Amino acid sequence: MDEDFVVPPDTVRRFAEAALVQVGVRRRDAAVVADVLLAADLRGIDSHGVARLRRYVDGVRWRTISAHAASELISETPATALLDAHRGLGQPAAVSAMKLAIEKAAGVGVGMVLVRRTNHFGIAGYYAMMALERRMIGMVATNASPQVAPTHGAEPMYGTNPIAIAIPTGGPYPFVLDAATSAVPRGKLEQLEWRGMPMPEGWALDPDGRLTTDIGDLIRGLKERRGHALLPLGGLGETFGGHKGFGLGLFVDLLCGPLAGAAWGRHTYPPEGANLGQYFLAIDVQAFARHRDFESTSGALLDEIRAAKKFPGQQRIYVAGEKEASEAERRSREGIRLRPAVVVDLERLSEELGVPSLRSTGICV
Amino acid sequence: MDEDFVVPPDTVRRFAEAALVQVGVRRRDAAVVADVLLAADLRGIDSHGVARLRRYVDGVRWRTISAHAASELISETPATALLDAHRGLGQPAAVSAMKLAIEKAAGVGVGMVLVRRTNHFGIAGYYAMMALERRMIGMVATNASPQVAPTHGAEPMYGTNPIAIAIPTGGPYPFVLDAATSAVPRGKLEQLEWRGMPMPEGWALDPDGRLTTDIGDLIRGLKERRGHALLPLGGLGETFGGHKGFGLGLFVDLLCGPLAGAAWGRHTYPPEGANLGQYFLAIDVQAFARHRDFESTSGALLDEIRAAKKFPGQQRIYVAGEKEASEAERRSREGIRLRPAVVVDLERLSEELGVPSLRSTGICV
Repeated sequence: MDEDFVVPPDTVRRFAEAALVQVGVRRRDAAVVADVLLAADLRGIDSHGVARLRRYVDGVRWRTISAHAASELISETPATALLDAHRGLGQPAAVSAMKLAIEKAAGVGVGMVLVRRTNHFGIAGYYAMMALERRMIGMVATNASPQVAPTHGAEPMYGTNPIAIAIPTGGPYPFVLDAATSAVPRGKLEQLEWRGMPMPEGWALDPDGRLTTDIGDLIRGLKERRGHALLPLGGLGETFGGHKGFGLGLFVDLLCGPLAGAAWGRHTYPPEGANLGQYFLAIDVQAFARHRDFESTSGALLDEIRAAKKFPGQQRIYVAGEKEASEAERRSREGIRLRPAVVVDLERLSEELGVPSLRSTGICV
Repeated sequence: MDEDFVVPPDTVRRFAEAALVQVGVRRRDAAVVADVLLAADLRGIDSHGVARLRRYVDGVRWRTISAHAASELISETPATALLDAHRGLGQPAAVSAMKLAIEKAAGVGVGMVLVRRTNHFGIAGYYAMMALERRMIGMVATNASPQVAPTHGAEPMYGTNPIAIAIPTGGPYPFVLDAATSAVPRGKLEQLEWRGMPMPEGWALDPDGRLTTDIGDLIRGLKERRGHALLPLGGLGETFGGHKGFGLGLFVDLLCGPLAGAAWGRHTYPPEGANLGQYFLAIDVQAFARHRDFESTSGALLDEIRAAKKFPGQQRIYVAGEKEASEAERRSREGIRLRPAVVVDLERLSEELGVPSLRSTGICV
């Protein structure tokens, strides 16, 4: 099969949920994971959608992820909490953590929750956006597998450590930034490779510490941990601010690793399974301003930004989250397009697990 | 006079304090401003040191900065507060705000304070570092005069909006990131111009929206608001993550402007004087971990990072704040070197105000 396949969003959700339930995940937790995967597929972040379902299913089957773990509250103050996810799925732990941060923000103005001993949680933006339902500001970060070289370094020492920020601004879409602190996330590399497109110089180093543009070798080298490394946001050296991206990545690692009591740097994925740390912050807008005032003023700010003079050849300025929100609207209507390799993998998963195939509800295009 | 001039740190402090007192600033507030200026000079951030004293003195003389304003508490919750600086000097308001954030963090785990109607506060890192004295984590941001073009835009719409983060890690120096969300801060441009060094392509646009490398024209154009613009961290377009730097800059503006109730975007410096907004966050490490555990683990993380394989031709990996802390040690011993143009300006200020000249304690080199 070499054609793309388009499936209704609900099919993605039901398939992912069924697969996870089949390997022993509680239905409630499976539904959370499915919702986070679907959100990524809807928002156009294909690398973090159902294409990644196998990673979680296999993690549970191989017991590097605990199917039955529940988050435990280790300590708390009126504005903070520390949770231990006991090596369970990252998504349900993250939803619990963000809910708790939001409750604390509702109580005292700000809530900050850290989670340790957790797993990959999908798109960070999902949890930051939970704050929007309460018209709050959300901020989320996670450490990750070591793939990024420090400024002036030449080997992967820490993760792409993304930061997501959601702000309930006025206007058609909220402000939603979801950004790896590396120059590019790995998913972007994979998207380019699928499309047969080249990568520019300035994103990554090969194992000898040379700038590389060999995208296939880079992706395989990162996967196999052969010493390839992504560069920080800002690129090589300090000329374009690479030390700032490096600093932001370390900031995330210091909070998610040492402060949360999780693993850090090169040690986030020991053989027995991940020990990631994650950071969740909620800010109650009402502690500072009336919702209406804040949303109208922030909407005016973003309107002015969008109306700025354009760079030659550009028609439009996109505020963070706009592209993703309009893509989500489109895909909700038109369905989710899966690459042939993803469909093959999901078909195989359906056979392995004995869950109904995606095929019956999809359309080849 | 065309030689550099070296003065003892205490001379800088006393001169700045005397100058501000002379134009009517309370001695306590003048001492705070002097301390922030001196910290910048010690840490090697010359653009934000005593070279900028005239800006504050003239602001007070021209009444765009109120000499006698005191910060007023507008609202608070157990974890948050909103202050109005009533157009006073930024530094004393910022010190009050960070102290309050730290007190709130000591009480409930996290403290977040916003300040509105305030002025330029010098280096953001100064206030983030106040948290270190309590072994807490500090995070500070400010909006600024419009100098940065949005991604796909071609005119300055918002400020360099720096983010500073201080973390009390183990090891010789704490982690202190103090980074404009633009590819470069304006101070860096000025440093290069003083030294007669070129700028690379990829930092800034001219008024026609073309990439420029004419550093003199750029600096004057930014000052005179002729339409030149710096690019966000990550550079032009989205290829190297410029949209991420743009997103971080907007995040700072949304919190410091609309949320704090201050001006935003292009409107931060109306003719009657600045109406900046600033953000101060303190996190009590003890809400999550024992100080000793956190500092030893974070120290181990940074040690590993420093020990990574080096990029060809590089000898050392610097963690954020290392260069500045070791420069501060050196300058504390050896004195602060002022450029001839700065000395001339400070001599003129001493005559204008009738305060003792710097000359008596400095050494030409």
